[in-house]
Amino acid sequence: MNIKDVAIRAGVSVTTVSRVLNNRGYIGKETRKKVEKAMEEINYSPNQIARALQKSQSYILGIIVPDSNHPFFSELIKHVEITANEHNYKVLICNSLDQLEKETKYISMLKENRVDGLIMCSHTLDVEEYKKLSFPVVTFDRIIANHFPYVAADNYRGGEIATEHLIESGCKKLLHISGPLKLDLLPNRRTDAFRLTCMKHNIDHEVIEGTQDNLTFDYFSDFIESEVSVKLTDFDGVFCSNDLVAYALYLYAAKNNIKVPEQLKIVGYDFHSFTRMLQTPKLTTIAQPVSRIGKILSTTVINMVETKELDSINNSVVDVELIKGETT
Amino acid sequence: MNIKDVAIRAGVSVTTVSRVLNNRGYIGKETRKKVEKAMEEINYSPNQIARALQKSQSYILGIIVPDSNHPFFSELIKHVEITANEHNYKVLICNSLDQLEKETKYISMLKENRVDGLIMCSHTLDVEEYKKLSFPVVTFDRIIANHFPYVAADNYRGGEIATEHLIESGCKKLLHISGPLKLDLLPNRRTDAFRLTCMKHNIDHEVIEGTQDNLTFDYFSDFIESEVSVKLTDFDGVFCSNDLVAYALYLYAAKNNIKVPEQLKIVGYDFHSFTRMLQTPKLTTIAQPVSRIGKILSTTVINMVETKELDSINNSVVDVELIKGETT
Repeated sequence: MNIKDVAIRAGVSVTTVSRVLNNRGYIGKETRKKVEKAMEEINYSPNQIARALQKSQSYILGIIVPDSNHPFFSELIKHVEITANEHNYKVLICNSLDQLEKETKYISMLKENRVDGLIMCSHTLDVEEYKKLSFPVVTFDRIIANHFPYVAADNYRGGEIATEHLIESGCKKLLHISGPLKLDLLPNRRTDAFRLTCMKHNIDHEVIEGTQDNLTFDYFSDFIESEVSVKLTDFDGVFCSNDLVAYALYLYAAKNNIKVPEQLKIVGYDFHSFTRMLQTPKLTTIAQPVSRIGKILSTTVINMVETKELDSINNSVVDVELIKGETT
Repeated sequence: MNIKDVAIRAGVSVTTVSRVLNNRGYIGKETRKKVEKAMEEINYSPNQIARALQKSQSYILGIIVPDSNHPFFSELIKHVEITANEHNYKVLICNSLDQLEKETKYISMLKENRVDGLIMCSHTLDVEEYKKLSFPVVTFDRIIANHFPYVAADNYRGGEIATEHLIESGCKKLLHISGPLKLDLLPNRRTDAFRLTCMKHNIDHEVIEGTQDNLTFDYFSDFIESEVSVKLTDFDGVFCSNDLVAYALYLYAAKNNIKVPEQLKIVGYDFHSFTRMLQTPKLTTIAQPVSRIGKILSTTVINMVETKELDSINNSVVDVELIKGETT
């Protein structure tokens, strides 16, 4: 089925059909109706691929995440997709599973499919592949080069209000379980803020670095057992890099008769749908506005696509908020 | 950058480059290396769009879900995507949000983009649009026409073992909170099994139908308050249509001093990552093997694409399993 078949069926010229399809030139109301009816009758839909080739636009965005089933990224993807759809863009989803090899393969796949733009939320070390891309790239929580815009919730502020809240709640010795610090990720600023806020208030403190960038609850539970538990008696407050770590720590404490919040206060990070559903305990945490971040990621990359700007210094930093739960 | 530029750079003919790209005909090792080096140097990637147009294959699959952030669908999408990627297919994600209008728009968008196949996990009433599609469609938990294969976990068996477990645990009056039964979904068989198993064992029973197909925890919590709570004292066991309902019911019981499992026994359905992480309570539930379902959905539709079979009666029904937790 092509445009010729539509023309024959409608009894008009191919040019007329093309005008209707592209909304160009004058078309009488009756003629438009005839063409639309013919398209429906022969079940014709304009071939976007052929069009994309012509316009060199595919209306497809890629999104690379470490794990689309992690509650934070799952929620982020939903809002990225809903916003993209409102602008008639589609979203291709890529799970890097934090494997550089997988990520590299995805990038060449996205290049081959001529996606219009890319939202990069991955955590792997190598960013050189991204710099070579000829379409707009927006990153989440990461600066990969000056001309790539990023979207982030205010990580420094998040670390600061988490730490201040623990200090105001009476903690004297603070621990921070960070993400992997080797990567130059913006969440590292939470750790900077933790250190500086503790120093400002003369509070003893220590940082345990997440050694691996595995985002599963099972991994965090094992990590608490093996790396954190031996040190735990030295501290009365812990600022965790995300809510799954905070939850795993709470469960370890409950199992080992450490009373939360009396003996140990816990602050998490994210407040995604898992945390919002969780009732035992209601975590004290720093809320990132996930839906707003997703929306901005989509609109930023779409705006770059449509203005044909590859470079942009239009970074967005959104506010975070302390959610007071039962763990402090 | 096109194939000509690669040929010039490598000092070979366009035909030779084409042979390397398509893995056709004899190419010397050295020549292949030269071409590959040239492609890298000028940052050339074969234009999949142009190729798709030629071959009329895009290597893109669509997946329509009610809500990609629901823990079940989030996990399903991850495994669909990972499996698709292993076969060099990409996945376009579509959130229908259970709005027929949105779903219809997605379907025409997928048609226009010439996706190779579609995985349909939506719950809206109208399936006529799907029957008109000219590419393979695989459904999850739903029969839309005889020639569309479906993938499901054994819903009847799931309802049966849930009900039998409640009866064996000593329940005398059973309630089932179902999904919306108007839709001809395979999960309705859980309700059939509930009714028949109760009748077989002479157990008093009742079904409360979910009136809306909203999948959020907040909706389920409100539903328990407004529709279920008044009747709850009549029953000593409840079989819930999913784990979020079961969790909302457990929380309602805890708040209202109804002891679980002593006074009220609760069985859920799904055992997705949310339930697996949840520790208070550990839900008794029926496990659907989400990762297996995702894998089969992907391989089924890819197999149809590659064998060019639009019709298939290759349905897959996978086993379910009772997970004994603390709520029975």
